[in-house]
Amino acid sequence: ATTFRASEHQHIRYNPLQDEWVLVSAHRMKRPWQGQVEHQPLTTVPRHDPHNPLCPGATRANGEVNPDYEGTFLFDNDFPALQPDAPSPGPSDHPLFQAEAAQGVCKVMCFHPWSDVTLPLMSVPEIRAVVDAWASVTEELGAQYPWVQIFENKGAMMGCSNPHPHCQVWASNFLPDVAQREERCQRAYQSQHGEPLLVEYGRQELLRKERLVLTSEHWLVLVPFWAVWPFQTLLLPRRHVRRLPELTPAERDDLSSIMKKLLTKYDNLFETSFPYSMGWHGAPTGSEAGANWDHWQLHAHYYPPLLRSATVRKFMVGYEMLAQAQRDLTPEQVRIWNTLDPWIPFSLLFP
Amino acid sequence: ATTFRASEHQHIRYNPLQDEWVLVSAHRMKRPWQGQVEHQPLTTVPRHDPHNPLCPGATRANGEVNPDYEGTFLFDNDFPALQPDAPSPGPSDHPLFQAEAAQGVCKVMCFHPWSDVTLPLMSVPEIRAVVDAWASVTEELGAQYPWVQIFENKGAMMGCSNPHPHCQVWASNFLPDVAQREERCQRAYQSQHGEPLLVEYGRQELLRKERLVLTSEHWLVLVPFWAVWPFQTLLLPRRHVRRLPELTPAERDDLSSIMKKLLTKYDNLFETSFPYSMGWHGAPTGSEAGANWDHWQLHAHYYPPLLRSATVRKFMVGYEMLAQAQRDLTPEQVRIWNTLDPWIPFSLLFP
Ligand SMILES: O=P(O)(O)O[C@H]1O[C@H](CO)[C@@H](O)[C@H](O)[C@H]1O
Ligand SMILES: O=P(O)(O)O[C@H]1O[C@H](CO)[C@@H](O)[C@H](O)[C@H]1O
Repeated sequence: ATTFRASEHQHIRYNPLQDEWVLVSAHRMKRPWQGQVEHQPLTTVPRHDPHNPLCPGATRANGEVNPDYEGTFLFDNDFPALQPDAPSPGPSDHPLFQAEAAQGVCKVMCFHPWSDVTLPLMSVPEIRAVVDAWASVTEELGAQYPWVQIFENKGAMMGCSNPHPHCQVWASNFLPDVAQREERCQRAYQSQHGEPLLVEYGRQELLRKERLVLTSEHWLVLVPFWAVWPFQTLLLPRRHVRRLPELTPAERDDLSSIMKKLLTKYDNLFETSFPYSMGWHGAPTGSEAGANWDHWQLHAHYYPPLLRSATVRKFMVGYEMLAQAQRDLTPEQVRIWNTLDPWIPFSLLFP
Repeated sequence: ATTFRASEHQHIRYNPLQDEWVLVSAHRMKRPWQGQVEHQPLTTVPRHDPHNPLCPGATRANGEVNPDYEGTFLFDNDFPALQPDAPSPGPSDHPLFQAEAAQGVCKVMCFHPWSDVTLPLMSVPEIRAVVDAWASVTEELGAQYPWVQIFENKGAMMGCSNPHPHCQVWASNFLPDVAQREERCQRAYQSQHGEPLLVEYGRQELLRKERLVLTSEHWLVLVPFWAVWPFQTLLLPRRHVRRLPELTPAERDDLSSIMKKLLTKYDNLFETSFPYSMGWHGAPTGSEAGANWDHWQLHAHYYPPLLRSATVRKFMVGYEMLAQAQRDLTPEQVRIWNTLDPWIPFSLLFP
């Protein structure tokens, strides 16, 4: 019988954090690509545009004028998917027609007053201000809501409709689907193995050294064993931390610096401002925040769409939508980009 | 207290077939769109291109020459994600690092010898030949494999890399993730309520008449109560049918005709060759095919990406990837396109 080699033989892998499987078919990278190529946005973004509703001093859709902010700036989304006062749909009349109330708030957070920067182009202290703002908004909205989802859509390819560096914060009175799955998986792991799933997982990856991308005093970045997107990563604290506000000043500084390195590596990989969606997951908040959530470990997911170059992305379509996630290179092969020099001066990349 | 109106007040809905929730925020359609717009492929596709590997008489990547086929044509994918002989990764050494063997085959099925047609532009008898080919390939591969996934990626926006009308068939020795979820949900519903989930669901939608798109003697098309994509539909037989090969000749003819109508409506909605991913789900096959799968009802899912026009799509990014699916109009509002006349001559749309 042939010896199994992950880089040659397709197999399926289990995601124990979200209870899902992925089909790993490394040999598919050999396939020629004749499909859609993405535009590469070559237009330079002006540093300040008075008509951009995210800029300091600009007027927003609801008529409010932004302050002349100098660091981060948090405000209510003018087109929120969640509002605080939506009434309840009432009881369901049939098990196949179930609806529930959804209440919440949607906020937008600008990272910087300039439109022509991105997180990797910002200084470590500037990124640290973003980390602090993430922790505060988690505390503020988490006082009322059980789930505070911080996420960044970066790049037009990821549905981002404004080039100004920003993220969004959607807080809800319910645990969203993915949060529910992570809650169930982490709780079950803790009760079976007596420690948090992601604490043990981080320790294992440090031992195995097969999928590590970056490590620092307080943090690690790795390509998860069960990654779906080609260059997906997981950002984990080394210490057991349940939520962003618990991070110490030293951990926040170190996080800012490892984020800058990770995002610079991403930019350098295909010599483009790397698109992605990213977001933070931590223990639920709200009125139950005081319960035992020790099975939770704080983490961030990075989901970048690119596959082969700045203009060829992975499409999660047909088989992926109807059957199962599928990837075209193994998570271990992704290590290759770990060897790229991350310190090419940015000015060479974004003249 | 304000009275709940689905078209105004956000809420969450439950998908009982796949055990997932969706956030429905109808009022988000008011949001202006300044993000990415898609290219509309205006290039005309030649009817025959000897260099297109899907055309009759063309040479494929592996050197094989296609026959001069006149109807449908099924062949092995030259870059398969699943191969019949992949060895097993062997036992796992840790619960967080689980991999399993994946074996299978990937086939491509051309619908028609011409590259410049799509299913809605084909005649009902030509579509009927596709339906018959779907049933045969399910039987053929289902003799060995427990899951035979038929799916079509249509349009460059859906990662389709060849304009020639075709679908794919991936058969595997495992039940993919989505199949597992549908298996679990349908089995539980049957054991609790004594009848197949989707049979009861179809009956309810026929009574409620709020989300029906098309009905015929043997079939119905509806926007599911829990739809995620803006114009997502579900195609169901009226009779309890477990798998494609069980369809009678009359049901196959009627299916061909309702598919032509549905896809014409889609094309007419934004006056474009409507992109989508679609696929069939039926009871598992393989060596366990003889077991009791009466809780399964055959169905097809259509997942189209467009939201507002031929060039503005829905992005399933940030919140959707990190937290929960979210839609910007209610499934009931989608009925509006039911009122569009589906019989505009195609020649007006594709001159
Ligand atoms: O096989 P194709 O059509 O070249 O590829 C397309 O469909 C596959 C199955 O859904 C996906 O994995 C690919 O990402 C997509 O580009
Ligand atoms: O709110 P934005 O950035 O305009 O919109 C973007 O992010 C949202 C949250 O992930 C998505 O629902 C939208 O489809 C996407 O275009």
